[in-house]
Amino acid sequence: MNQRLVLVSRPTGMPSPDNFRLETAPVPDPADGQIVVRVLYLSVDPYMRGRIKDVASYAAPTQIGELMTGGGVGRVVASRNPRFDVGDIVVGETGWQTHCLSEGKGFRKVDPALAPISTSLGVLGMPGLTAYFGLLDLGKPKAGETVVVSGAAGAVGSLVGQIAKLQGCHVVGIAGSADKVRWVTDELGFDAAFNYKTVDPKDYRSTFALLCPQGIDVYFDNVGGPITDAVFPLINLRARVVICGQIHHYNDEKAAHGPRHLFHLVIKRARVEGFLVFDYVERYKEGLTQMAAWLREGKIKYREQFYEGIENTPRAFIGMLGGENTGKMLVKVGD
Amino acid sequence: MNQRLVLVSRPTGMPSPDNFRLETAPVPDPADGQIVVRVLYLSVDPYMRGRIKDVASYAAPTQIGELMTGGGVGRVVASRNPRFDVGDIVVGETGWQTHCLSEGKGFRKVDPALAPISTSLGVLGMPGLTAYFGLLDLGKPKAGETVVVSGAAGAVGSLVGQIAKLQGCHVVGIAGSADKVRWVTDELGFDAAFNYKTVDPKDYRSTFALLCPQGIDVYFDNVGGPITDAVFPLINLRARVVICGQIHHYNDEKAAHGPRHLFHLVIKRARVEGFLVFDYVERYKEGLTQMAAWLREGKIKYREQFYEGIENTPRAFIGMLGGENTGKMLVKVGD
Repeated sequence: MNQRLVLVSRPTGMPSPDNFRLETAPVPDPADGQIVVRVLYLSVDPYMRGRIKDVASYAAPTQIGELMTGGGVGRVVASRNPRFDVGDIVVGETGWQTHCLSEGKGFRKVDPALAPISTSLGVLGMPGLTAYFGLLDLGKPKAGETVVVSGAAGAVGSLVGQIAKLQGCHVVGIAGSADKVRWVTDELGFDAAFNYKTVDPKDYRSTFALLCPQGIDVYFDNVGGPITDAVFPLINLRARVVICGQIHHYNDEKAAHGPRHLFHLVIKRARVEGFLVFDYVERYKEGLTQMAAWLREGKIKYREQFYEGIENTPRAFIGMLGGENTGKMLVKVGD
Repeated sequence: MNQRLVLVSRPTGMPSPDNFRLETAPVPDPADGQIVVRVLYLSVDPYMRGRIKDVASYAAPTQIGELMTGGGVGRVVASRNPRFDVGDIVVGETGWQTHCLSEGKGFRKVDPALAPISTSLGVLGMPGLTAYFGLLDLGKPKAGETVVVSGAAGAVGSLVGQIAKLQGCHVVGIAGSADKVRWVTDELGFDAAFNYKTVDPKDYRSTFALLCPQGIDVYFDNVGGPITDAVFPLINLRARVVICGQIHHYNDEKAAHGPRHLFHLVIKRARVEGFLVFDYVERYKEGLTQMAAWLREGKIKYREQFYEGIENTPRAFIGMLGGENTGKMLVKVGD
């Protein structure tokens, strides 16, 4: 039987498990051109909060009663598609379910010899590609420059900081616990980091100033809000600000207000650019090849954190939105 | 005798004439390498509001007791510099005074046969170059795209819209009076414009939506504030926002707050970039050549508005900050 999570109501503020319902249905048989994937791991990511709003964003929202949007990795258990054989490990948009029927569009094969297959949802998947293209293509860090990353212990931020170190940058992270700060500095090699929960937001700016004595050349923003507000006054001439996410605001019920930043951009002739990894599909191979090489050479580390069981996917999602995870948050839904 | 305006106090909010004092001193004799320029026209520009704050911006502020910063055009009346002859018309940083002693750094000669010399402070000067490089280099408008410009009847905005029309764009302006709206639409060829003073700020967005049925591809911002807030939700995929000025905020005594715009940039993979014309010094000749050609061919129109007498420069400046001018605001200080 296929177990699937459907959206039953739209959350106000932080989602709750009640916004989703677990349904059971027979595993379908593939028609010509289709495959059935037994999902083994599901990904929970910040962007999904946008998909359960009743607002069109860069993608259409999930409708009430529909299968919840999400990426997963699993094993092909039936195939009438010549691109895939039974037994192949594939990653793609499976939705939050145990068995996915697909024409294979957007699915790619994963080599289980390369790394644990769960990494195809993290360091060797969408978050890794986000870090790689967002930082290198838009941030364009140069050796000796200072790179600041918010959400530094998250799936994307932890990789952004490490890639920036590989470019010879001074890297400063912001994260939400002492453990996360220790992880990014002691294990991942960030030059400095601070726990935003134990610093008064009024002091974020002076804290950044202390940790970034040469100012800030690149800011990779996963978060928004008061952390981002503190960065803008410290940007250097020709700074690049990459907006990858704004998780601080995803549960906002109305448009948030904050200090205006635009004149800083004039003073510093700086650039702010929004980023979506899906625009880089044609270069995924390049990004994955480089990330895999860095991983193999021990130049990049990652951490994964798991919930178990399809029924706990909403809890994993809510936990991730609340900053429970260090590294990538995943749900193990099969063996 | 040289008449000069010095800064005697820093304004709170809108400047007043009392912030400046007219002083008289003998016209100095040039030392070796120096020239004396009899200033004929002075420019008043929004950026000067930043120079009389006690805050370092992209340039150091004018200090209390110092000659007020500003550009002017005039006649060389004494020269011990081989680059300049007596009788040359030159434009440069003269400051707010009738006679300027200079080593000639940053001064360039103006051909009075080409156009009235006052245009060297407008369409064939800094504002013209600002429009040219800001729009074309950062805005990169393509034929058929929609370009919105705030401060549309100002020295820069009026040129931005016309250059955008020359690129084949749909051009929409925002200005502060019915006369200004008429000027930019009837005489300058903008496709549409509206008077922001007679529209409720809550309706700016729907007004833009009506006037920009294809969305907004390029926004050239001279203003900031609620006008800019209304633009962000309407930007198109890969939109370019050029921040040239934020005159709405120049009299603010503390950092203004407003709606947060950064997530729009992700949704639309859009870019916001700050712009200063002074970064383009090495390409001024290119810009001036093109602007002069368009002017000669009748493809670009301009308007100038004058105060008379050095003593009225603060009034011209204050008037310009309040939106009194249509086109370029100048002060005639000599014949």
